[in-house]
Formats: sequence, structure tokens, C-alpha cells
Amino acid sequence: MQPSPTSPHPAWLPAEAFRPLAGATAAVLGQGICLDTVRSELSAAGAAVSTGEAATYVVTLASVVEQDPWAIGLDPSVDVPRSDLAQHGYVVVRRDGRTIVIGADGQAALHGFYALLRDKATGRMTGVQTSGDNVSAPDQLLRMLDHWDNVAVHPVMGQVERGYSGGSIFYEDGSVRQDLSRVSQYARLLAATGINAVAINNVNVHDTEARLLTDGLAEVERIAAQFRPYAITTYLAVAFDSPIRLGGLETCDPLNPDVAAWWRQAADRVYAKIADFGGFLVKADSEGQPGPFAYGRTHADGANALAAALEPHGGRVLWRAFVYNHQQDWRDRSTDRARAAYDHFAPLNGQFASNVVLQVKHGPIDFQTREPVSPVLAALPATPIAVEFQITQEYTGQQRHVCYLAPSWSENLQFRLDGTRTVAQISSATTSGLPGGIVGVSNVGTDEFWTRHPLAQANLYAFGRLAWDPSLSPADVLDEWIALTFAGASNADLARIRTALHAMMDGSWLRYEGYTAPLGVGFMVSPHHHYGPAVDGYEYAPWGTYHFADRDGIGVDRTCATGTGFAGQYPSPWREVYESVDTCPDDLLLFFHHVPYGHVLHSGKTVIGHIYDSRADAVEALDGVTEAWKGLSDLVGGSIPVDLDSRVRELLAEQLSCAIDWRDQVRSYFFRKSGVPDATGRRIY
Amino acid sequence: MQPSPTSPHPAWLPAEAFRPLAGATAAVLGQGICLDTVRSELSAAGAAVSTGEAATYVVTLASVVEQDPWAIGLDPSVDVPRSDLAQHGYVVVRRDGRTIVIGADGQAALHGFYALLRDKATGRMTGVQTSGDNVSAPDQLLRMLDHWDNVAVHPVMGQVERGYSGGSIFYEDGSVRQDLSRVSQYARLLAATGINAVAINNVNVHDTEARLLTDGLAEVERIAAQFRPYAITTYLAVAFDSPIRLGGLETCDPLNPDVAAWWRQAADRVYAKIADFGGFLVKADSEGQPGPFAYGRTHADGANALAAALEPHGGRVLWRAFVYNHQQDWRDRSTDRARAAYDHFAPLNGQFASNVVLQVKHGPIDFQTREPVSPVLAALPATPIAVEFQITQEYTGQQRHVCYLAPSWSENLQFRLDGTRTVAQISSATTSGLPGGIVGVSNVGTDEFWTRHPLAQANLYAFGRLAWDPSLSPADVLDEWIALTFAGASNADLARIRTALHAMMDGSWLRYEGYTAPLGVGFMVSPHHHYGPAVDGYEYAPWGTYHFADRDGIGVDRTCATGTGFAGQYPSPWREVYESVDTCPDDLLLFFHHVPYGHVLHSGKTVIGHIYDSRADAVEALDGVTEAWKGLSDLVGGSIPVDLDSRVRELLAEQLSCAIDWRDQVRSYFFRKSGVPDATGRRIY
Repeated sequence: MQPSPTSPHPAWLPAEAFRPLAGATAAVLGQGICLDTVRSELSAAGAAVSTGEAATYVVTLASVVEQDPWAIGLDPSVDVPRSDLAQHGYVVVRRDGRTIVIGADGQAALHGFYALLRDKATGRMTGVQTSGDNVSAPDQLLRMLDHWDNVAVHPVMGQVERGYSGGSIFYEDGSVRQDLSRVSQYARLLAATGINAVAINNVNVHDTEARLLTDGLAEVERIAAQFRPYAITTYLAVAFDSPIRLGGLETCDPLNPDVAAWWRQAADRVYAKIADFGGFLVKADSEGQPGPFAYGRTHADGANALAAALEPHGGRVLWRAFVYNHQQDWRDRSTDRARAAYDHFAPLNGQFASNVVLQVKHGPIDFQTREPVSPVLAALPATPIAVEFQITQEYTGQQRHVCYLAPSWSENLQFRLDGTRTVAQISSATTSGLPGGIVGVSNVGTDEFWTRHPLAQANLYAFGRLAWDPSLSPADVLDEWIALTFAGASNADLARIRTALHAMMDGSWLRYEGYTAPLGVGFMVSPHHHYGPAVDGYEYAPWGTYHFADRDGIGVDRTCATGTGFAGQYPSPWREVYESVDTCPDDLLLFFHHVPYGHVLHSGKTVIGHIYDSRADAVEALDGVTEAWKGLSDLVGGSIPVDLDSRVRELLAEQLSCAIDWRDQVRSYFFRKSGVPDATGRRIY
Repeated sequence: MQPSPTSPHPAWLPAEAFRPLAGATAAVLGQGICLDTVRSELSAAGAAVSTGEAATYVVTLASVVEQDPWAIGLDPSVDVPRSDLAQHGYVVVRRDGRTIVIGADGQAALHGFYALLRDKATGRMTGVQTSGDNVSAPDQLLRMLDHWDNVAVHPVMGQVERGYSGGSIFYEDGSVRQDLSRVSQYARLLAATGINAVAINNVNVHDTEARLLTDGLAEVERIAAQFRPYAITTYLAVAFDSPIRLGGLETCDPLNPDVAAWWRQAADRVYAKIADFGGFLVKADSEGQPGPFAYGRTHADGANALAAALEPHGGRVLWRAFVYNHQQDWRDRSTDRARAAYDHFAPLNGQFASNVVLQVKHGPIDFQTREPVSPVLAALPATPIAVEFQITQEYTGQQRHVCYLAPSWSENLQFRLDGTRTVAQISSATTSGLPGGIVGVSNVGTDEFWTRHPLAQANLYAFGRLAWDPSLSPADVLDEWIALTFAGASNADLARIRTALHAMMDGSWLRYEGYTAPLGVGFMVSPHHHYGPAVDGYEYAPWGTYHFADRDGIGVDRTCATGTGFAGQYPSPWREVYESVDTCPDDLLLFFHHVPYGHVLHSGKTVIGHIYDSRADAVEALDGVTEAWKGLSDLVGGSIPVDLDSRVRELLAEQLSCAIDWRDQVRSYFFRKSGVPDATGRRIY
């Protein structure tokens, strides 16, 4: 991994993507920092930017209203879909050879500008020249990335906790980088996906990081200044015990008036420096972080104390629901980590201040490759919810394995959790209309490709796009990413790249699931670093992550009838679906049930047969992945950069090697336990 | 763990141990730095030191010969056992109320002086006033400690690799400590046990440490100057590729003339600075360290190149035989790590220069709680051998568990490996008389008790004593340590302390074995840090450390008939004893054989019954350990220091907790695999 290169890979904004604008006339009407960004983008692309007659206009709704519509080439009788612009939306209107991007405001106009680029790139790929209006408003008002970046290198977790892409683009060895150009480049990439918020430091707030809230504010503003032109708001992860650690108080009891006063003053100081500051992100009473439990207070008490301090400034608290006993005793089968967040938070529905957003991991455990949707998402209908995904591939191959995660996110977001509303609908707003959002843990670092695996850029891109519009198809989003990223390729080359990348990426998440932990049981990863197989790695650990495999069977009984009762936390019909071994989906069977190895799945295979076969099949399928990339060899040095090719090849080899380890260890482990031979005769070591 | 305290615990040299000398008249005759040390010790103890008439004399053999024996109170007609003094021995002679310590030389006189102290302390404990002569010469001429201390903190291994006692007494954060008073105190403690050599840096030689050989020589001499007055010689661990890393050569091929010249010049520079320098310790072609294999050379070629450079100065090379493939594939059952050292080194018998000592770990794997004696020890009768033990408790409880290791070392040293000679006889000299020795990896650090667990001091003491005289009984050595360490206690208190510590320590190694990996199979420890249970922790790892447990049985088949053939590396009768499941000792059964869980041991128990029962019994026995210590509560603040008591109590609690983890995880693991219930009905989780 290199130190931050000055010219990293351009990702989905290569110069070639802007080529359609070269030599064009363009006008940007309106004031504001984001419109200035559009002007800079147009100039850099070689467009002639004026305020007069032009082929391309980028304007705000206010400008359209204020000015004579004719001045921007619009026939006043043509209806501009203003209602869609209400919530930060944009429209790209094409009339009489003119293209007019209208944004609800400057930020939306910027998003519309990038949509225009996207239209041009994908239009070229599909052979369809975009014609009609492109109207779009974000489904989720909060589209956020969390960075688990440490300011000081943590002795165990390093510069970026669960980061696989080199150093932090923000920090180096204890302080904010002097040169923040990578942050600016990053902000631009994010703006092109629609991301509008970033928390810039790790939710595990160590001492150096805690001081960002006080001594470090000038440095935080330096970072915020990089994001601002790209319509992105900056948040800080703060320590719940800041009043003690930073303020010298003897308590951080959220109901203590001195504590409340400290938070108010802290927030006042932040907004004095950073007027558009977003708010605080808090991990409390979780994995050793301090929290309100120490004072006998609820998490609503805790969150509301911070929310009160932010409220006068319009700031919000992102409060994580990831609260469980991480010092569990594996001998104690009555405790179920999956239950913990619901048990803690469901009783608090409606008790949170209106500027608190409860940030809930998509599954009940911890970003496993396959988990059921968390029942917490349906448990607090009066509380704004943000659903949290992990873009950084902690449990999904750590950016050494090709694992396109958009299909997983899409499946989660469209899951109809409470019988009527999907997860995306729940996160977009409470039933009374308070907005929540979608949050992802970022996967970038100082790596020259940003994300170690060049194809993992697609995850970051797709996350932003799905946060804007969860109804998008993962394959279509991948097409956008390909069209932009390989904008320099000829149409013929692009078609081949598209075919190869779909073969490599569309099914990559299911393929990864295929060679790792089976049927929703999770983990089986090497302790601590979570890369590579260790079937018993977490089996006798205090983390509540067990598979309970013995010589007869495997799985966790989470039924109400005979297990931990977790299934009962779901609304109907899911409580009934998951409760019964007959209706539980195969891919979650071992999450909800302990079954004998001979249990027959809906697929017709036995559990042990599935364990054996899927591991072997998934590894065999990797040959096709490698072949697909090799089939592009003649494009290397042309449409595919040489360094990108060598990185991809190196990582495909690593993926294959690691997948073989998974296959062989899992198969050997279960053969040793079950004694059942592989019916296909494939070798078990 | 504290930073190096200025007044650490005095270990086995408390002021009270010197009280018998207070007010005595003493004379020290002879010249030399070690006799000066004796003079200082006597003065500090309050003796009146002169060269005239005295009650106590410390003299060298040369003085006795040169001077009128009457001058030191010796009747010339009395026979002084001079032959025993030939090899660095001493005699403590008591005549007519006078005590005369005669050393073969100044160093031996120093050892004799500490023997005198020991006699006085143990005599008080046993109620027997020492009367007759105490004649002793070291069985092993090389009695060495290796320090795995890093100069620079290693990102993974820390300041002291496999160290459990705080920081390094030599180094801090990248350089040699300015204040080396702890090293001087340590040297004094070692001298009182008979240790005469110390290698001061880690055998895994990283970059900073490699430069001790060149840029760091002035600092090495500062350390050597601390050891010299205590009859201890300083050695350096050196990197085999030093000619490349430090010399800028393009090769370190041991047969290359430039390489040989570089080593000669390096050795010359060392001896110009440190005339009594001991020599080099080398870990080559082992766990990633460079070595001669890269040039198609043998380890004899490699060692001899360094030996030639040291030979003119009388220096020696300690060359480690710990060479094996650490990137083994667990799928490959034909490779056996246990075989590796023999396969590499046995063919080299007699090919090493006479100033090379082959340093061989006591067992064929890696310092496990129970291993057979390494067959390498018998495989090179023409080559000097040093047998290597681990005092630092990497695999034996990491100085949190009481584990008195002298019984293990004693058993190994007295094992009659080649039918005639014991391991101690083999290490004392080759059949042609070339001396080898005994080496231990030290367990000390900056901890205020030196060894974290105060009772682990006894391991360091016992190691030195057994290296001097391997025939000593571990219980007697423990008595010495108790008598010296608690020299301030009254006779009645001392008797109680002795009873309690024997109850706690005599059987502690077998008790530790009882709750950890069963029947010689080894490992089952948490990966990397090696503390606490993980039955499958190394089962699918590249380290060659497997138990092969499945639903039917467990163990490694190392027989010639059906296994890896390792048993065939032993001389008779051991090859036959180990080859047969009928004659193989129970405690090594799973090291040599894969057997069904129902296999009946010589003890009458089945293997699975033994696994279940021993784990539970050993944990139950810990209650007696805790009770024994608690029984001394009324001595705390008197004969037992308060801080020592609280440290011991804290660690006994940790030991019990960890032992329970071992018990429960091992029992659960094998119940899940075997399905056999515990016949005693004790709970399996």
C-alpha cells in the first residue's frame, strides 16, 4: 500500500467522462458555493462558461422563477416538474437542442450536473441517446458515509479501523493531513453519487480523536471546507464521556445540568466555527465505549442530552443501536446477541428528541455476509431511523475478494419488514414524516485505487446511488459505474468490459457467501482480523457469535418455541416464517434453527450436502471470474490501465487462494464432525 | 506493568540473606573483577573486609598455592579437593571455626561465595547447620540465558518477544537504556544461580537490532560491563544476512570470500571493543530469518563462516537447530514438523567447526508443556550441543499461572536418550570432550517482581541451578529459592511458607498439563498470543501443529509403520517404545499415535475419559493452590510483602478463570465431536 499518491485513480470521474462538454457553451445561473463547483467543472471540461445564451444551462429553481424562462431556452408553457424538486431534487430537461439542469437549490443543481454526465456516459454504452426529462429527487434525505478513521494510529486497529485501503485520507500519525487534496477529490466523487453527509472519525473515539470536538475544531473546519463545495455536510463522532475526558467534569450523566451545559457550550463552539456542521455520531455502551447505562439512564436520555445542545443550530444526533453484551459467556445459551438491540431500544419508541436519528445495522448481529433484516428497524415507528451498511468489506473479503454488495443492500432496502413498509421506506421517514436515512461505513483510503480492489470502487458508487434511489437495480447501477469509469474506452471495448464485469460482479456476493459460512450461520472467520476461515474462531469467544456445530447438527435455535425467542421480535408474517423450520428460507436456516446434518433444504439438498457442494461449486465458479478478466487482456494498456490490470490480477489470485482455504477448511471441519462423505466424491482433506 | 522501578523486588538476594555476614571478619585474597564483587558484597553485608586474619576467607586456588595455607587458616595436611576445582569449581571448606571459599578462579570464587550464602539460608530452614565441605564444579560449562528483547518496539511482538514481565531491562523505544542499574541487579541475581552467559537481543534480528553488531558496539559494551563483574559473558544474536544488511554486500553466501572477510572484520571490531565477548547466536532459515539455504549451502557451511571469524578471539557460535517449514499446508499429512530439525541437521554430524555449538530445543516442536525429548540431541555425537529450554512461559501460562518448570527440565535433562547418556551428559560435552551447555529463554522484564508472577522467579533461579548441576532435585532447588527469598522470615514462618509453596508449586507443571492440551498432543492455544484455549486454533494453520481430532479419535500418527516415521529418528529403545501404542507412555500417546476416543490408556482410563477427567480434576486441584496461599494471610505485611501478596492473589484468580476456560472449552469441544458423555456426570456445556 502506497502513501497517498498525488494522482490517484480517477474512479468514476475520469477526464473522458467530461469530454462531451468540451467546447460546448454553458451557462450557470444562481449564486452559491455548489454552483461555483459546477462552473469549475464546466471550465475544466473545456466548456465556454457564461451567463448568456448557451447549449447547456445549470440553474436553480429560484433562478427559473426569478428570470424570464426564455432566457434559459425554456418555453414557459412547458411544465417544469417543480413538485419533484421540492425535496432537493433536480430535473434535466432537454428542449430544442438545449439541455437545462434545474436544481431545487445549488446543491441539487450540482447533483443534477453529475446526473447529466451519467446520462451521457450510460447513453453511449446502451446506444440510446438520452432524450426525455430526467427527473429525480432523493428518496433518503440523509445519505451518509461513516469513516472509522483514527487520527492517531491505534496500536491494534491501526490508522483506519477495519480499513483495507491503506492510510486515512484525513489523518496521518496523530494529526489532520496538511495536504487535504485527496479529501477534495473524494468529496467530488461522492457528490457524483449523491452522498450528502460524512462523519470523519471513528465511532470508537479514542483520546486524540475525542479532542477533535474541542482543540481540533480548526482542523475539522479545514476538512469541512473540502466537503462544502460538493454539497456534503461534516459530522463528528464524539465520545459520550466528553464532559469528563475533555471538560474535566466528574460525570457525564446525561441528566446532570452541568453535563447538559457542557454539551451546549461544546455545540455552540462547533457552530461558531462551522456554521453548516451536521451533528454528532455516537457509539455508546457498546464494545467498551462509555454510555448512559453507567448512570442508570436510558439511551433516549443519553441521545436527548446531546440533541438538546445541537437543536438550536439545526444539528442532529446519529445514535447507534449497536448495543449488546460483548463479554458474553459462550456457556450461557439463554443470552442471544441478536436480541440485544431490540431489547434495549424497542421500549424507547417515541422517547427520542426529533433531531435524533437511531442508526441501526441492517442485520441483528454485525455486517455478516447474510443476516436477516434487523427487527429493530420496525420497532420504533415514531423515531427516525438510519439503516447502516458496511461498504468496507470487513466480513466480505476485505477488498481482496470481488464482492459487489449492491445486490445485498438492495435486497435489504426492499425487504417489506412490517408487512407494508420496506426498509427504505422506514428509513426515509417515520410515519409522521421525520426523516431518517441510509449510512454506510466507507471503504476508501490512501490507496492509489482508493479501495485496494479497483472493482470495490463500484461498491462506494453503488452505495451513494442506492441511498439516493433504493429502487435502482444493482445491475443498472453497475452499468453506470462501468460507463463512467471506462469512459475512455471505445464503444466496442466498453461492451466487452461491461460483459466481463457483469460476469465477475453480478453474482459475486452470492459466490462469496457460497464459499464462506453456510446458510446464514455467520462468522467462522479468523479472530480479530476477520479475514480467512476459522470455523471455530468465534465459537468459544465472548462475542455471542456461535454456530453450535456438533457431530449431529448445526445452527442457532432462535425460535420462540424452543430457542432464544429472537424470531418473536419480528412483525408478522416474518415471526411465523422464521419460527418454522418448514417456512424459514434456506439462506437463513441456520440463523434461526439448529438442525441435523441430514435435514433436507427447500433446495432438495441436505444441510451437509449443501455445505460440501456450495463451497466447492463457488470455488469452481471463480475460474469463470478469472477467465472473464483475462479475456480483456488485449485492452490492457489501452482501455484498461496497466496498473489497474495488475492489481486486479494479483487480487484475483489472492481471492482464489483464500476461497480454496475456505472450501477445504469448512469441508474438512464438517466431515470430521459429521462423518458424512461428500456424495459427489470431491476430495475432503 | 510499571516502568522500570528503581527498587524492584530483591528476589533471592534480599538483604536478610546476607545478615549472617554482618559484623564478621572476612578476607578476600586474589585479584580480579569478580573478587572485587565479593569484596563489595561482603562490605555491603556489614563484614569487616581485610587481607589478614578472618573468620571467612574467599580465595582463588592460585592464592592458596602461592601463599602459606596457614595464612588462611588451612592445615596444609588437609586435602583441598583440587581436582573438583579444575573446571571452574569451588569448595567451601569449614575448619576450626573458619569458613574458606576456594574458587578455581575469581569467577568460581564468586560462585562459591553465593554458595556460602545459600548454605547458610537453607541450613537455617532445614535446621541443619552446614558443617562438611561443599564441593562443586559446574556440570555444564555453558549456562546461558537468551533474551528475546527487541531494541525497537516491534509492531507485533512488542519490546520483548514472548515476554510477560513488562518492558526490556536493556532497551526502551529504540535504544539501550541510559540507566542500566536493573541490568546490574539482574547480573547479580544470575551470578548467584551460576549463569555465566547471556545473549542480549532477540534471535529474530530486526533492523535496529542488527546494528548492535556495528554501530551499537559501544552500547553493547556498556551492557557487557554490567555483566562482567558477575562472571557473565555477553553474546549477541546476529542476522545471517548482516553482510548485506550492514555491509552493503550483494550476498551473504557463507562460502563467498568477501562475506567471510566481512564477518572477520566484524568480529575483529567486536573484540577490539569487548575483549571477553562470548560470540554469536544465530537463528537462520527459520520462520522467515535469512540463512544459508538461499545459496544452496548447508547449515554447517553457514555456521562455520561465522565460527571462523570468531575463532581467533576464542568466541563461539550458538547455531539454532530450530529449522522447519513454517508455511506448511495442513492438507499435506506427509510433512511432519517434528521431523524437520533431525532431517536437516543429523547429516551434518562432525561437519561443524569446533567452536560451533548446535542449540537444540528440548522437544521436536516448540516448547510445549509436554513433548518427547528431541532426537536431534542424540544425532550429532561429534558436535557440541546446547539444549534450549523456555523459562519465559509462552506455552505454560505466561507468568499468570503458577507453573514451576524445574520438574520438566529435570525430567528432560535426566532422560537417557541414546541408551547410555542422559541429555545433560550429551549437552555437557561431546564424546570427544567438546563442551556444549544449557540455554534458557529468560523470563524477566521491568516488572517490579522481575517476572510478573512472583513465584515465576523460582523458574529463573532453578534454571541456573539445574544448568550448574542437573542432578539437583527440583524440590530441593525450590527449598533453596524459598530460603533465600524469604530469608527475612522467622523459622516458624519459613516452615509455613515452605509447606504452602511446595503445595502450590511442586505439582504445578503437571496440573497445568492437566487442564490444557491432553496426552502430549500440544498446542490448542489461542493463535498468535498463545494464551488461553482454542482447540482448533492451530488446526488449519501453516505451522505444522495439528491434533487431527475427528468424531472418532485424535492424535498424530508419527510411527514408522503407518505414520510420518518420526519415531524412527530415535535411538533404541525409544524408537520401539514410541512406535508401539502398547508401550508408548500415556503422556506422549497423542504425540505419536492417532487413537480412537475409546482407546484404554495404561492408567486404565479411556482417552476421552482422560480428556474429560483430567481437565476437571486439575481445575478442582487449583482450589488447594489458592487455599494454600490464603493460609499464609496472617504473614502478609510481615514475612510476606503486601504487594507480593496482592500480585499473587490477583494472578491466582486469573489462573483459575483461565483454567476453567480450558476445562470447559476442551470438554465441550470433545463432547461435541465424540458424543461420549462424561461418566462422572460433571457438567459439559
